[in-house]
Amino acid sequence: MKRTERIGAIIRILTENPSKPYALSYFSELFGCAKSSISEDIHVASQTISFTGTGSLETISGAKGGVKYVPDISDSEVLGLQEEFCSRLKDTSRLLGGNFVYTSDIFYDHEMVSRLARVFARKFRDCGAEYVATVETKGIPLAYNVSHLLNIPLVVIRREAKISEGSTVSINYFSGSYDRLQKMSMSKRAIKSGAKVLIIDDFMRGGGSVTGITEMIGEFGGTVVGVGIAIVASEPAVKKVENYSSVITLGRVSSEERIIEAVPTPDLF
Amino acid sequence: MKRTERIGAIIRILTENPSKPYALSYFSELFGCAKSSISEDIHVASQTISFTGTGSLETISGAKGGVKYVPDISDSEVLGLQEEFCSRLKDTSRLLGGNFVYTSDIFYDHEMVSRLARVFARKFRDCGAEYVATVETKGIPLAYNVSHLLNIPLVVIRREAKISEGSTVSINYFSGSYDRLQKMSMSKRAIKSGAKVLIIDDFMRGGGSVTGITEMIGEFGGTVVGVGIAIVASEPAVKKVENYSSVITLGRVSSEERIIEAVPTPDLF
Repeated sequence: MKRTERIGAIIRILTENPSKPYALSYFSELFGCAKSSISEDIHVASQTISFTGTGSLETISGAKGGVKYVPDISDSEVLGLQEEFCSRLKDTSRLLGGNFVYTSDIFYDHEMVSRLARVFARKFRDCGAEYVATVETKGIPLAYNVSHLLNIPLVVIRREAKISEGSTVSINYFSGSYDRLQKMSMSKRAIKSGAKVLIIDDFMRGGGSVTGITEMIGEFGGTVVGVGIAIVASEPAVKKVENYSSVITLGRVSSEERIIEAVPTPDLF
Repeated sequence: MKRTERIGAIIRILTENPSKPYALSYFSELFGCAKSSISEDIHVASQTISFTGTGSLETISGAKGGVKYVPDISDSEVLGLQEEFCSRLKDTSRLLGGNFVYTSDIFYDHEMVSRLARVFARKFRDCGAEYVATVETKGIPLAYNVSHLLNIPLVVIRREAKISEGSTVSINYFSGSYDRLQKMSMSKRAIKSGAKVLIIDDFMRGGGSVTGITEMIGEFGGTVVGVGIAIVASEPAVKKVENYSSVITLGRVSSEERIIEAVPTPDLF
């Protein structure tokens, strides 16, 4: 195999498996060549990945030595994403009754979701999370994509206890969006005790749902180490959650006046 | 930029955006070099991608000319995946009451999900689907991953009509698994009229749920062009659905005898 092909193959394997460490010996066995050659290949692969913008190779030192691909997104890409997201969201054909905004098409669009996931992967790559958690349904693709980029498992908290989840822990919480008591339920098998958890969700208004997830994680002896939300409503200004990151901020929504306001959240990084 | 780096960058851009066509001019502008050089680079990129096993580059002829990455999975990888999937599933600690089997950890494990998604991307890449549809919840990461590989949007059918989905169409269907009438609900905005839809789900017993989705798609004037299910139960032998593909077949499950039987589905391709 030629050097060019080897480098291409290394780039592919690493970028398709973000945050997953590979020993140099893995590549030297795969290509049947010396570790010193692989080291040089990785150097070129690293430059190429940096050129294409989103991510970098990180070398792991130590006896076994290796390399992993750390996903990233540039500041200008983040800004472009925020602006595109706002402009899509402000389309008044999204207005539903009760001043709700239709967003399912955005959260089920893999191009949009993978860009959003990169934002949260950059934000939370060093938070030490062992799981990504979300509550069903609309945030699942985004949370799944983040779990892929950070190479940790996903946990989906259900609204109702299901027989296929085995024994579950259930809690009740107050949802400001729906102005009523809601329930969530998590399988006892879902996370190990004492785990560090990153919460990812599509939308937050008052923070009831995130508070519920946090309480749930607490029931398992776990800790929430980060909260990433795609869209946060500007009202109420005081949330039940203190620390969270959002990509865009939803302002005034009025079905009567046919208006949806949305702006990029400042100081995302 | 050196040739080696260009090729690496091309591989990365194409494989990170499966099934998405790129004009040669896109790369010639990005790298500032002639289309003829890009053509040669793509030739090498294509060989490299074939070497790493899963997928190939497909050239699109015509005035604009271009190239796209078509994801694939080799027969031996499929077999390896089927065997690993069965062996994980047969772990009797998965047994729940009522002869249910706990599978959430598998369907929320991104490594497993992305390999399963490749199987369905290979199976259904030429089916002409314009959407991937699933019914919440456990099949969502898999369906999302397939939608990414085929570069089409995802549609998630809900159990309950939600205010955030706007006007919905709801249907009732009989679920053999739960031995009762179930409901599903889909936003009127979710798909365009007359669309071709690929159904992806995590599990099928009698086929009630898939029949429900099919009926739902029919309500929108659409057609189901493929059905891919990760796990299909061997009983009942006669399903409500005629054409479907599954990765593994779940045999006898008994909490009393502590047994879970699972085998690779033959003739998957």
